[in-house]
Formats: sequence, structure tokens, C-alpha cells
Amino acid sequence: MSLVHPDLLFPPDPGARAVARRLYADIKDLPIVSPHGHTDPRWFAENEPFPDPASLFVVPDHYIFRMLYSEGVRLEEIGISARSGEPGEGDKRKIWRLFAANYHLFRGTPTRLWLDHAFSTLFGLNERLSEKTADRYYDRIAERLAEPAYRPRALFHRFGIEVLATTESPLDPLASHDAIRRAGWDGRVITTYRPDAVVDPHFDGFRSNLMRFAEITNCDTLTWSGYLEAHRKRRAFFKAHGATATDHGHPSARTADLPRSEVEALFGKAIEGKCTAQEADLFRGQMLTEMAAMSLDDGLVMQLHPGSWRNHNPQVLARFGRDMGADIPTRTDYVGGLKPLLDRFGNETALTFILFTLDETSYGRELAPLAGHYPCLRLGPAWWFFDSPDGMRRFRELTTETAGFANTVGLNDDTRAFPSIPARHDVARRVDCAYLADLVVTHRLDEDEARDIAHDLAYRLAKKAYRL
Amino acid sequence: MSLVHPDLLFPPDPGARAVARRLYADIKDLPIVSPHGHTDPRWFAENEPFPDPASLFVVPDHYIFRMLYSEGVRLEEIGISARSGEPGEGDKRKIWRLFAANYHLFRGTPTRLWLDHAFSTLFGLNERLSEKTADRYYDRIAERLAEPAYRPRALFHRFGIEVLATTESPLDPLASHDAIRRAGWDGRVITTYRPDAVVDPHFDGFRSNLMRFAEITNCDTLTWSGYLEAHRKRRAFFKAHGATATDHGHPSARTADLPRSEVEALFGKAIEGKCTAQEADLFRGQMLTEMAAMSLDDGLVMQLHPGSWRNHNPQVLARFGRDMGADIPTRTDYVGGLKPLLDRFGNETALTFILFTLDETSYGRELAPLAGHYPCLRLGPAWWFFDSPDGMRRFRELTTETAGFANTVGLNDDTRAFPSIPARHDVARRVDCAYLADLVVTHRLDEDEARDIAHDLAYRLAKKAYRL
Amino acid sequence: MSLVHPDLLFPPDPGARAVARRLYADIKDLPIVSPHGHTDPRWFAENEPFPDPASLFVVPDHYIFRMLYSEGVRLEEIGISARSGEPGEGDKRKIWRLFAANYHLFRGTPTRLWLDHAFSTLFGLNERLSEKTADRYYDRIAERLAEPAYRPRALFHRFGIEVLATTESPLDPLASHDAIRRAGWDGRVITTYRPDAVVDPHFDGFRSNLMRFAEITNCDTLTWSGYLEAHRKRRAFFKAHGATATDHGHPSARTADLPRSEVEALFGKAIEGKCTAQEADLFRGQMLTEMAAMSLDDGLVMQLHPGSWRNHNPQVLARFGRDMGADIPTRTDYVGGLKPLLDRFGNETALTFILFTLDETSYGRELAPLAGHYPCLRLGPAWWFFDSPDGMRRFRELTTETAGFANTVGLNDDTRAFPSIPARHDVARRVDCAYLADLVVTHRLDEDEARDIAHDLAYRLAKKAYRL
Repeated sequence: MSLVHPDLLFPPDPGARAVARRLYADIKDLPIVSPHGHTDPRWFAENEPFPDPASLFVVPDHYIFRMLYSEGVRLEEIGISARSGEPGEGDKRKIWRLFAANYHLFRGTPTRLWLDHAFSTLFGLNERLSEKTADRYYDRIAERLAEPAYRPRALFHRFGIEVLATTESPLDPLASHDAIRRAGWDGRVITTYRPDAVVDPHFDGFRSNLMRFAEITNCDTLTWSGYLEAHRKRRAFFKAHGATATDHGHPSARTADLPRSEVEALFGKAIEGKCTAQEADLFRGQMLTEMAAMSLDDGLVMQLHPGSWRNHNPQVLARFGRDMGADIPTRTDYVGGLKPLLDRFGNETALTFILFTLDETSYGRELAPLAGHYPCLRLGPAWWFFDSPDGMRRFRELTTETAGFANTVGLNDDTRAFPSIPARHDVARRVDCAYLADLVVTHRLDEDEARDIAHDLAYRLAKKAYRL
Repeated sequence: MSLVHPDLLFPPDPGARAVARRLYADIKDLPIVSPHGHTDPRWFAENEPFPDPASLFVVPDHYIFRMLYSEGVRLEEIGISARSGEPGEGDKRKIWRLFAANYHLFRGTPTRLWLDHAFSTLFGLNERLSEKTADRYYDRIAERLAEPAYRPRALFHRFGIEVLATTESPLDPLASHDAIRRAGWDGRVITTYRPDAVVDPHFDGFRSNLMRFAEITNCDTLTWSGYLEAHRKRRAFFKAHGATATDHGHPSARTADLPRSEVEALFGKAIEGKCTAQEADLFRGQMLTEMAAMSLDDGLVMQLHPGSWRNHNPQVLARFGRDMGADIPTRTDYVGGLKPLLDRFGNETALTFILFTLDETSYGRELAPLAGHYPCLRLGPAWWFFDSPDGMRRFRELTTETAGFANTVGLNDDTRAFPSIPARHDVARRVDCAYLADLVVTHRLDEDEARDIAHDLAYRLAKKAYRL
Repeated sequence: MSLVHPDLLFPPDPGARAVARRLYADIKDLPIVSPHGHTDPRWFAENEPFPDPASLFVVPDHYIFRMLYSEGVRLEEIGISARSGEPGEGDKRKIWRLFAANYHLFRGTPTRLWLDHAFSTLFGLNERLSEKTADRYYDRIAERLAEPAYRPRALFHRFGIEVLATTESPLDPLASHDAIRRAGWDGRVITTYRPDAVVDPHFDGFRSNLMRFAEITNCDTLTWSGYLEAHRKRRAFFKAHGATATDHGHPSARTADLPRSEVEALFGKAIEGKCTAQEADLFRGQMLTEMAAMSLDDGLVMQLHPGSWRNHNPQVLARFGRDMGADIPTRTDYVGGLKPLLDRFGNETALTFILFTLDETSYGRELAPLAGHYPCLRLGPAWWFFDSPDGMRRFRELTTETAGFANTVGLNDDTRAFPSIPARHDVARRVDCAYLADLVVTHRLDEDEARDIAHDLAYRLAKKAYRL
């Protein structure tokens, strides 16, 4: 018995299940297109073995430690070190055992599905992880990780990845991407332009980031025109490293299209570190419009991931730093927020602007109607907390009737957990096949059409939307 | 094989499907009551043939051209003319072919269901529309449209319509409605009082509309009392043309109940074109309360359709005008917004006030609790983007447990696409039967009760709520 | 045939239904833990017979009279007396007949399920209630109520209640709770500390409540420190009467953590009755943080029930008073609102803070992410309007994937309708088993795990969260 049942996530009704099975059989082995994610390019540049089971699965996965933390496990216990230097638990087997003893907490969550998929398909582990099986798991995984077949590049091919995008700051020299090219390896790993560090006036060290940005680009980034020129140059540099897209993670979906003089004044305040919260939001919003203008020139696809209140927990931030599972979604307004950008570029068929959300109320009320009208807009898949079976089903049920399938872009696995990539794509493919099967058995769609759409959702739409 | 499967939209489980079939068999042939829509009364007054397939199906349907536009088709290509006079594509067959070649975009949307229903039941077309079948479709439809049996009045009866409401401005002379009466035709086509043009201070030409309103009613519409009197007279005129309802399409659900002196001052500003956005909203809100007062006198049922950001795309508005598929829903507050009106009239059992929404979050949180308490309130059906199988199911799932069925009003097809009317009612009847079947097989309801409710939802509630 | 089908609320698919049946068989007879409700402790103190069917089922149930009122029944007709002293209908049989004749209005609502459950399991009535059966029902229920087996204490044990919490104001002497103890009866009825009357500056008679609070506690409640001390003492008094929890019903989820001087100034305004709406909200928010601090000391579990616009209908309020079915949910912000409290106490594993909502949009966007991170937070079950089959299913579907099961707390029946308690727990157990069965047949969970979780949801989580 496998931990991954062949009928995982298929509808219980035998008729619908049969359709889902057929649809899935047709697409399950399609290559993985991963146009947005956070894996470390160094893995593929250096191709060193992954160190141990806990470091591979537990320590880097904020889904895991947020759940453990919510139930009273301290972050130190799972190996997170404090910023003060105080180290987290160093005994990896101990971390693993703690995790295993708490594995029941993940029942009903996607984390459970992703992990079981990796345990089973990658490590041949098919007994449920628990306190009892913790050591057997640890030993088996550790043993395998030492084998050449489990090094990053081998896994990349084993996973069937056709292309994998990582995400880097404009200040990143992209050395690992260079190294990958130089190595002559045939895996396609590309970068993505994520300029938060130099477009968010409230980013840590914004001004010194600008200085560094100036050095790298040889532009005067303290003038508005020099600053824009620096972006243009750096985008070209990223493009030369394979980038086909930019990514923008803002607190809100606000955009702006201010007169030049106002922008310059605002930029002046940003440089001086004098922006209020509102002004910082306005500046970021202006930069989205500037980025859209540049995208029209250089063809990079834009992505906007708004609506996360980052580092909501100040004690966790102070002790452990950013990205410790304390980001919480907030209500997000797209209809008013995006208007300035859309007023200017909404009708451009040459622009692709992909929207994500952490506010599911926007699917039917805002995002599907917007994407179902504006030629430049596409809908990113269910994101983050909603990258889950029920979340993905709601995404389809709340967007398809208004925006159809063609205004969506396939899956983003959006992960730093490399071994979860095939699992995430498998879950998405299964959920989509289940959804399509339901349309077929309720006679809203013929099966040949569903087959065609399943192929789009699993593979073709991502390639098309991201120009891959 | 028909394009419309006999089990369309029924639950896949055989037991539930059997119940749904029985419920549906019982109500599928009930007459159509269409208490709210936007068909052109001239069709029935003049009874001329519909011109051609593209003009019948493509050009007037904003669901169709918003989807095509979102995927890069220009509006000119589907026959929309610019305001400047620049004509859109004139070759109807070319428009039809373009539409057919893009018909796959509508997979999973209600548009697809409505069109397939019309193609199949009305034109006997049962091969899927595609580039390949485009001409066959065009020829068959064009041929049929030339036949007497496809003229508006014949279709009206063929569709089994018992009564059809159109929607007119107070400034409309209702000449077509007069002509219908004079013709001695036995179809019941009635009007609805939709006063946006004379209650929205920001409506195009508001002041000249008021002048015209004065001429028509012989009232001094520049004084508050004369203005109200004009409404009263015009409502009586509409009532004499069959109207049983008024309809109000506002950006928000705000109502107001201001002291007379404040209203007069606000009205003065409105006349002078000096209302701010807030003041215009306040004035519209005050007018809802005034309309409720008049409804208590003359018995017209009120309808409020709030929450659409009209003409969100300024480039499309500038080039093509209003109603070009660029209306986007927004968040809507009913609980605070309606309070002034409800404070005054909420407890009146003689008033019927029907609420619609484009913000599905309000179903469970606001609308069902409000309608489940206030005697005057009823819930309109899933509207616009949500007039779809999943949208209608969500409407039932999110309102029934709090407001029951009796606080709802059956279907509004709300369409200008005449041939889609039977399809829309058929989809709604099927979805309701599927929902009821689910209640039956989960033993929340007995089948005889479900049968009774199905009849209510398909026919009786609309007649009762709209006093037809 | 029973009014309660053995498969009530189980999934229609035979495979899923079989799983649901097995899960349910395992937990259906577990004792009832009712940690939050509004039954009258006097019932158990005095153990008098319930007076008559109408007084038992109709008059105290705001779910019932809001629906009847919404359909035009006057509150007087169902026995509600006006505040002016004008009595409501006194003929209980007449009230019962009116209710019976309108019983069809409850089709599809949870009220119907709860009532049918009580009629069937408690009174052996298995013909549907209607105008025709009204008298038979009335006679049978009245007859039974006269029997010793139908007195409150007997029913308590018959229902299998292990512990029942009532809710009292700090100003309540808890005499009934004392009487229950003195009676030597073995039923466990405990109180809950609900301080609205003395923490809400806009509560009726706030200042005189404070004076009474001073008398009871012997503290100077007009000074900030005396006021806090009074709370501490009274909480201890409640704890001595079994309380393990406090309950807070606020309009918003706002919290505050102001400097001492600001709090004192605000408290001064509150005492003088000079708080604006905003200041009153701020003071209530500050008091939540104070209560959290006290909970860390005395171990009482906190509950927050925000988001109800109480007494939305001023005419009903004026004529009949509070709690007449005119409370309407509103949008609620938790992410910003709770931040001050969470900044201070969010990471305390010794604090349990249970959150409820009337805004289902917060489940996935706010509550599950918050509870899935902060150690002190737990999610209360679907509440009030959402304590219904579809509401409870949505709760699971929207929270489980992010927060898991362990961050939830089982059922609160939250009712004053004593005979509905077993029905409400039965519905919740069935819905949870149906949900779990769906996870099992879609292979997201193994059946042994589902069995374990079903046990948690029905019994163990409530005991643990409420420290019972």
C-alpha cells in the first residue's frame, strides 16, 4: 500500500471518479513547468547532497513550523536559531523525532499530502510517519540523500522539471545562475526579477540598497530617471539570465500613475527615509505602473502577490527574523487599487499581468470580472494558504464561470521545499481533473474538451503565460 | 445526441440524480415568469424578424464580448461601432466565424450552457459550435430567423412566457408598450420603472433629464415637492402600462432619511450639478427612501441592484460608450447602508423590497440575516456574474439556512438576450432541483416538500413577490 | 419512520456514507460537553416542569421568531409582550397552532432539524408538524412535560450531558448555581464570566452597574486599579462556581494596549458617560487585553464573539426590547483588531483565547492563519447563523487546511433552547463525520485517523480547550 492512493483527491462517485482517472492518466506525466518559486539556485550550481532529513523537510518549511508553533512547540526545538546567535536545536534526529511525534497535527492539511507524496515516491516509505516510525524514516532518508541519484540535479530530472524559476533581488549578482550555465548542465533554471528591496521605501536598508543598486548598474539611483534606468538595465541583466517575469510582493494592490513632479517628490522622500506608511504604499503603487511600462518594452511578465501582513508577530520577528510563519492575509481591494495602472495599460494585449490573492472573497467579486475583461490580466493560481485541495477547488468554482480557463495560468508551486515540487503539481493536477470530471458528469463539458483543458492547466497555460 | 443532456447539472450520485430528475420533470414545463429583464419591447411591438445570427447572439451580449475582449479580440472585430462613428465589422458572417473560432473560451461558463440550449432547442443544432461548424450554424440560424415561427411574438409563446417585464426610464414614452396593447396580441409584456436618469445627480445630462421629466409630467421638477410629484405621476403612468415594480441600480446600498431642509439643499446642489461623489451617493440613498414611501402608496415592488463599478475601463468608455462589459463588482455594505430606510419602513408588511448583490460575501453575513428578519425584505436571485450553476448553488447554500426559501423570489433572467431566456430558466430550475435533491438524499427534507419548493422557486415565488 | 433519518446529513455516495456511518456509530453516544450556552440555571436549581409546548419551543427561540416575523407574523401573536406591558398572545395552544401552520417556513434550516430531533427523540412524535398535526403535538408534549422524566434535571441526564456552562454577568449573585450545589444533585452546571455590563461604556446603565459592581466586590470601581481588582475578585468568585471561561461579546474584534495614563483617562470618560462610539470601542478593546492578562493569572479561558450589530431594528427594540431576532452580522477585522493583544500575549502557551465569527470571509483569510500560528489562539466552531449543516461544513473546509483540527475546540451549542442541545450536538457530529468521510474516500486521511479526529471533535477538544 502506497501512502499516495492512486485515486487520491478524485471524486467519490464512481462515474465521476472514472472520468477523473482517465483525465489524470493523460496528463500526470507531463513535464513540470515551475514558473514561480523560491528554491535556492545554489543547489543546482553546486549539486551537493542535501544534508539530512530535518534540514530537507522541516527547517525550511514555514507551513510546518507555523503549525508546530501554534500548538506550543518552540521554534528553537525545530532547529531555528535566534538572530542573537543563540542556536536552535542542533541534533537533527531529535528535530525529526519531534516532528514525527506531531505529524498528526497535519491531518487534513496539504502539508500532509505533499510530505506523504515525497516520502512514498522519493524514498519508498509507505508506513505512516509517527513517533514509532520516526527513526526508520530518518535512516532511510539520510541513506538515500547520500546517493548520487538524490543530488539536486538528478532530482530535477527525476521530477520531470522542464523549467524552474527562482526569485532574486536586483542586488543579487546571479552567480549561481551563472555557475549553472557554465557547468553545461542541461537543466533549465531561470531567475525572476523581484525588486522589493529597491522599490519598497520601508524595506530594511532601502537607501543603502539604492546605493548598491547604483554600483551594480552604474546609474545615479538617487535621481528618478537614473533610478528607472537602473531598473531597465537590471531587468535586461535578469533577462539575460533567463528571466521571463518580474514578481511584486506588496501589502496592498494599490497602484498609482502620478504626474512626474509628484513622483519625484515622493521618490525624494523615499530616499530620505521620510515616507509615511501611506506614502510608501503610494510609491510602491507607482512603481507597479513603472514596471508595467518597462514590461511593455522588454516583454517581462508581471506578477503581483498582494495582501500579506508580513511579520505580524513582533516577538517572533525580534527573536528569529522574517519569514517565520507569522505572515497573515488581509482584505485586498483590486478594483480600486489597480485602476490607475489599468487606466493606462489595461487594454495592452502585449502586456501580461498576473494577479494573485490571499483574500478569496476577491475571486468572484473582483479578480474573475477583472481578468474576464482586461486583455492584460491573467489570474494566478490559488496561492499560499489556498494552495490546497479545497483551496484550489474554490479557485476554480469561483473564477471559471466568469473568467473561463484561458484567463488562468496553470500552477505556481511557489516553494522553497524542493522535494515538494512534484507533490504540489500532482495535487494540482488531481484537483483540476476532479473539477473537470465534475463538469463532465454534470454534462457541462464533453470529455474531449475536459482532456484538452486538463492539458492546458497542467502544462500549456503556464508556458504561454510566462512566455517560456 | 443533443447539446443539452437530459441530466444536465444534476448531481452525479445515482440516488440524488433520480430525485433531481423527478423534481425537474414536475416543474420543467411550468410557464416562465420573467419579472426583471432588458429585452427590447419594440421586438414585440413590431414583431419583425431578428436580423442575423451575429446580431441575435453576439453583438448584444456583454458576457460574450467581455470574454472575447479579455483574450485579445478587439470590440470592432465583433461589430461594435465606436462612438466616433467609426463602424465595427459589418460582415455578420465574419463576426460569427470569429466567435465560433473562440467558442472554446466559454467552456465552463454559463454562456456556453445558454447558447448550447438555444442552438439545440431552438435551431436543432446539436454538433458543437466551432470554426468547423461555424458556417453550418450561421446558415441554419439565418434560415430559421426568416421563418414566421422565429419572430419575437411566436418565440415568446414558444418559450412559454407568461409574463415578461422590460425596464424603462421615466423619460421613456412607453410607445412600444402602447403598441403591444393596441395590437391586441395576447402576450403579457410589462414595463418597470427604472429612474436612474432622474435620481442620480451624476447621470449624463441629469439636469436636462429633469427638464424633460417636467415636460412629461407637467410638474415643476426643480422644486423638491414638484420633483416627488413627478415621480408619483410617472409611476402611475408606468403602472398603467403594467409595471408592478421599480428598479434601482446604484453604486452602493446606501440609503438616507434626511430632514426635509437638508434634502432640499442637497436637491438644489444636484440640480446645479454641484454634488460631490459623496453627496450624489447620499441623494441617491435619500431617493431610495422616497421610493419606498411611494411604494407603500402605489404598491410597486422595489428592487435594488447595488455594487457595480460601471465603466471601469476609461479607454473602452471613451471609444465605445457604456455597457461594454467593463462593469466590475465591488464590496457592498448592506447592514449599515440600508439602515435609514429600514429604520423607517423595515417593518412594513405591505412593502416588498428585493435586494440583489454582486458581493457574495454579503449572502450569509448580511442579506440572509436581514431578509430573515425584516418583513419588507426579500432576496433576489444570484445576479449577473453569479447567474451560473455554481453561483446559484452558492446562493442557496449561503442563504437558505438563515432565510429559508420563502424570503427569496425565484429567478430574474435579467437579460437582453431574448433567446437565452428559456435556457436561463432551465439552468436555474435544474440547479434548484439538484440542490433540493441533495437536501432530500441527506434527509434534510422529504421529497414531497422538495416538490412543493421546486414549484415555488420555478414559478410561484416570482408571481407572489412581484405581484404578478 | 422517524423524523430523524439514521443517515441524516451523511454524504449520498454509498462508499462515503458507509464511512460516515461507521465514524458516527463510534461517537454518537459520547457524553455532551456544552462549554458555552445560555440556558437558565434556575431550571436545574428549581427543577420545576417546563410550562407548556409554546413556552418551551417557540417563545424563547429567536431563530423561530425571526423567521416568522420576516414573513409577516407579529411578535405579539407568538406571545412576546411589549415593554409597555401590553401582553402578547396568552393562549399557548393558539401560539402553537400558528407556529405549526408556518412550520414549512423552516424547510432547509437548522431549526427544522433541531426541532424534528427533539419532537422525535424526546416526545416520540414522528409525523411532520403541520396545521393538521398541531394539536396532537401540543397534547403529547404537554402531557409529557408533566411527567417527572421531563423535568430539567432528568432531561440533563437523559441528554447525556457531562457538563453544561451557563453565562452570567459579574453582577449576578449566582444564586441558582449555589442552589444547584446545595441540592446535592450530581449534574455539573457551571457558570461563565460575561462582563459586558461592566466593560462596555455604552451598556444600559453602565455607571450604575459599576456602583453595583463596587458593592458586590467591595472595591472602588471608580478608580482604574479598583475596577481591575473588582474584576479579579469577581472572576475568582465565578471560578469558585465552576467557571473555567470568560465570554466577551463585542461589536468589533478591536483590542488595545494603551499606556496606563491613557487608559485611566478613557476610563474616566467611560464613568462619566462621555465616551464617543470610537472611545467606547477602544475601551472595550483595552478590557480584552486586561482580561487576557487576568486569564494568564487565574487560568480562565477567554472567548471573543465579535461582529454582531445588536438591535438593528429600532422599532422592534423600542417595542419589545433586546434580543428579538434583530441582530445582524457585520464585517469583522481580526488581523489588525487583535494585534495589540497578540503583540503582548500572542505567544503565551498558557493562555487560551477562542475566537468566533459572524463573518465567514475571515475563516480562511484571517482566523485560520492566525490560529495556525499564535500559540494562544483557538477557533470556536461555526457560530449562530452558521451553526447549521452547510455552515459547519464551510467552517471545516475553510479552516482545516490551514489550521488543522487541533486548533479548533469542538462544538458550542450556544443556546437557551434546552431541548435543542442534543439535536445540535447530533447535527455537529453528523456533519463532522460526513466531512471526515469525504477526506477518507478521497484518500486524504485513513479511516483510523478519521475515527480519532471524530472523537476529538465530538468530545476531547472541548474538554481540553475549556479546561473541563
